[in-house]
Amino acid sequence: MKVRILVSFKDSVLDPQGQTVKNALHTLGYGAVRDVRQGKVFEIDLAGVSRAEAETIVPEISDKVLANPIIEKFAWQIIEE
Amino acid sequence: MKVRILVSFKDSVLDPQGQTVKNALHTLGYGAVRDVRQGKVFEIDLAGVSRAEAETIVPEISDKVLANPIIEKFAWQIIEE
Repeated sequence: MKVRILVSFKDSVLDPQGQTVKNALHTLGYGAVRDVRQGKVFEIDLAGVSRAEAETIVPEISDKVLANPIIEKFAWQIIEE
Repeated sequence: MKVRILVSFKDSVLDPQGQTVKNALHTLGYGAVRDVRQGKVFEIDLAGVSRAEAETIVPEISDKVLANPIIEKFAWQIIEE
């Protein structure tokens, strides 16, 4: 089973990387860009794991390893059974 | 309109960050993890842009600024009209 996990800063946390990208896009003439938030994406291939097990494992992994729960949030979905 | 752009290494390119995460997860006892690929995600808020315009602007921005087309690929979707 393949899962995709998106990790990004909480809305209340400043995102300097996103700001830098926004400024670069403005400089290049893309004035329509109002805001940019940058985060990380993980695609994880899990072997022999049921949907119910994934619902336990994936949030656990995300909280322990992939995201820093103090400043980051995560969202995940199954992309391949 | 909000768009989400996922940037990740092409399948033929080694992903040392993903490997490191995989090893960390194995060490923590998550033996079911067969593979991890890590990438970047950008959420961009575009002001006053139609769907047709987004279909021009977003791939352009992705190719020029967000991804390195030699080693990275991108995928995008509209997440909010």
